[in-house]
Amino acid sequence: MKFKIGSNVKVKSKGTEYSGEVLPSTDNETLFLKLENGYNVGLAIKSISSSSSLKSAKKSSKNPKKQEKQNPKLPKISIITTGGTIASKVEYKTGAVAPLESPQELLSSVPQLKKKINIADVISPISILSENVTFEDWQKLAEFVARELNEGKEGVIVLHGTDTMHYTSAALSFMLENLNKPVAIVGSQRSSDRGSFDGAENLLCAAEYAKSDIAEVSVIMHASSSDNKCLAIPGTKARKMHTTRRDAFRPINSFPFAEITPAGKITKIFDYNKKSKGKVNVNISFEPKIALIKIHPEISADILNFYIDKGFKGIIFEGTGMGHMPLNDSWKSALRIAKRRNIFIGMTSQCLYGTTNPNVYQTGRELEELGIVYLKDILPETAFVKLGCILGRTNNFVKVKELMLQNLKGEFNSRLTKSQYLY
Amino acid sequence: MKFKIGSNVKVKSKGTEYSGEVLPSTDNETLFLKLENGYNVGLAIKSISSSSSLKSAKKSSKNPKKQEKQNPKLPKISIITTGGTIASKVEYKTGAVAPLESPQELLSSVPQLKKKINIADVISPISILSENVTFEDWQKLAEFVARELNEGKEGVIVLHGTDTMHYTSAALSFMLENLNKPVAIVGSQRSSDRGSFDGAENLLCAAEYAKSDIAEVSVIMHASSSDNKCLAIPGTKARKMHTTRRDAFRPINSFPFAEITPAGKITKIFDYNKKSKGKVNVNISFEPKIALIKIHPEISADILNFYIDKGFKGIIFEGTGMGHMPLNDSWKSALRIAKRRNIFIGMTSQCLYGTTNPNVYQTGRELEELGIVYLKDILPETAFVKLGCILGRTNNFVKVKELMLQNLKGEFNSRLTKSQYLY
Repeated sequence: MKFKIGSNVKVKSKGTEYSGEVLPSTDNETLFLKLENGYNVGLAIKSISSSSSLKSAKKSSKNPKKQEKQNPKLPKISIITTGGTIASKVEYKTGAVAPLESPQELLSSVPQLKKKINIADVISPISILSENVTFEDWQKLAEFVARELNEGKEGVIVLHGTDTMHYTSAALSFMLENLNKPVAIVGSQRSSDRGSFDGAENLLCAAEYAKSDIAEVSVIMHASSSDNKCLAIPGTKARKMHTTRRDAFRPINSFPFAEITPAGKITKIFDYNKKSKGKVNVNISFEPKIALIKIHPEISADILNFYIDKGFKGIIFEGTGMGHMPLNDSWKSALRIAKRRNIFIGMTSQCLYGTTNPNVYQTGRELEELGIVYLKDILPETAFVKLGCILGRTNNFVKVKELMLQNLKGEFNSRLTKSQYLY
Repeated sequence: MKFKIGSNVKVKSKGTEYSGEVLPSTDNETLFLKLENGYNVGLAIKSISSSSSLKSAKKSSKNPKKQEKQNPKLPKISIITTGGTIASKVEYKTGAVAPLESPQELLSSVPQLKKKINIADVISPISILSENVTFEDWQKLAEFVARELNEGKEGVIVLHGTDTMHYTSAALSFMLENLNKPVAIVGSQRSSDRGSFDGAENLLCAAEYAKSDIAEVSVIMHASSSDNKCLAIPGTKARKMHTTRRDAFRPINSFPFAEITPAGKITKIFDYNKKSKGKVNVNISFEPKIALIKIHPEISADILNFYIDKGFKGIIFEGTGMGHMPLNDSWKSALRIAKRRNIFIGMTSQCLYGTTNPNVYQTGRELEELGIVYLKDILPETAFVKLGCILGRTNNFVKVKELMLQNLKGEFNSRLTKSQYLY
């Protein structure tokens, strides 16, 4: 049996009928169909007992120009697209991943979305591959999210590439003050024309999240490699832990706020701020002269001197173990210069899980005396983003230190438990 | 009931008798005892029904001068100590962790060890906190390990601080060619006078490993937070994933070679090279002008230009996702200069789990065209160590690239499976 990519077919496999558009297959043994509900299904070709072609069954829903009707009784949610795999498709000729023509093309490919929410607005302030995200992009995004929420939307869904989604979720967490409604950041690990497309389910879960009472910035991605639920991971505690898996995003030193099924079941797991009245305050101040340095054996103090000379205002170290680094005379001297110039240096751990602590070993105590601030169990990436925000708000060194150690947005977890490890 | 730290007591708790040395307690409710078998036990003080002091019951075994008898019928194993928590104790007065007076002090605290192996030699070539480990230390260690094995020992156990244990295990993996006997690297997350000391069990498992037929460099540490088994993790696939837990070391993109109990049960999990005859070849060439750079949003190309100007020979990037980074004109120009000067640039992923791939996204294809070599599923830390070894062996750029892509010591895994994720 041969199936033409892009054609619409009805097939029967193991007694069940499936109608949908033929997607490219990775082998000659599987037929991938995009079903009308937005899901994709893979069927063994030898299991197919009958097939017929459907001329233009899905044509209308593929027309990006067509504005489908909204249900005004559903909660008003805005969608902000920024590019990334979830807003991309594979060009069959070249094999390259290219942006969708319009956000409508994505939304119409997940028709169930409109049964859950009233898509009040679709905004595309930027269109980037997320590895190219800039501090200015974060500022733009935060302003758009705040505007939408303050204009009366119940929640906002941000579509984002997965490479740096956790950096952006941290940025939105810190930039949106007094957040009183849900903000979901959602992406996909496979593009929408792949059989293994995860974006439809992630979007449906994000829609459920956006309607919920969880007034937090969360990353909404697959909970496991199967298609049955998503996690709502705190925006300051999320991290991409796998290059390709659909459940790549994990909470580190935290639980997810909740598990969410595409059907709308929300299982609460971890304390969160509840939805409330009032306005969101957006604080987009950001100091760009910041760096994140991973420590490794024999790393030279030259690197710190380089950043000092370039006028950098703050640096996050990703130390070893509880927050250590080689401590020779040249490092000591570079750290003393940084201290004298009020350059903030924060310590995190490349272990990722667990907390830093300057008090257990000699090296920690010495580093703390040299002015390094131990940032507890914060993720290195979150510490980097937070530092930009805090240095943007004040250049009073005492205040910077105080704010960096204050738990502003759940970036520190005082309730670390065993079962959060490798969650 | 009051117990003096350092005194020897016999107590009864819930019907069971315990004899041992009183250790410092973290609260007033628990009595920690170091038992004669090397294990520590924590007992609720209110559960203790009787207690008596034992004058000098354990004195003799604590004397570091005393050389205990070896059993010549057991396999001859050498122990190399390098410092670190496993070879440390807390100074009760200051609370600081200080090195043990002699390796014998550690060995005599785990008397069961001598029932498993004939400790043929105890060598202490270096005594460092592992965050200060140098390339020269790796060279020294490799030479000592090779010498011991080639002089007829059945295996070697290296005691090492945990902060950089996985960097050192990678270094030994690459420097020991034609390895034909087991090399265990073992540490502890808690010092030997803590109630939660893990070093005794780790050492006993390492002894079992050193007697086994697994002719590989492995990190031997707790499998879980309880005291019942250790993992033998491939030296190129191990990573410290938690700052304080006893099961901090995990295999990344791999299974452990085996699970090992302190009683000697070895459960094989993953293919390994079997013990064989012949000599180990030690190749300690190492190029020190190497760096490991973690990519983050808006990272400036200045950092690459800085390393180019400093005459660096090779750099490992820890990219986002499948191996990406911001790709603006200044990065392109810096990468072109690096390519022209034959500076090796390798790409790994900060996700840690999963493989890099330049062929899925536009950025990957462009980065590969600019000369970046995608290093599959290797750990960033292992890639850094391997690069030093390879650049030490040849300055033929084509050969460097070829060797960096060749699976020399299990640093690449062509059998990535679901259950290796978050193992």
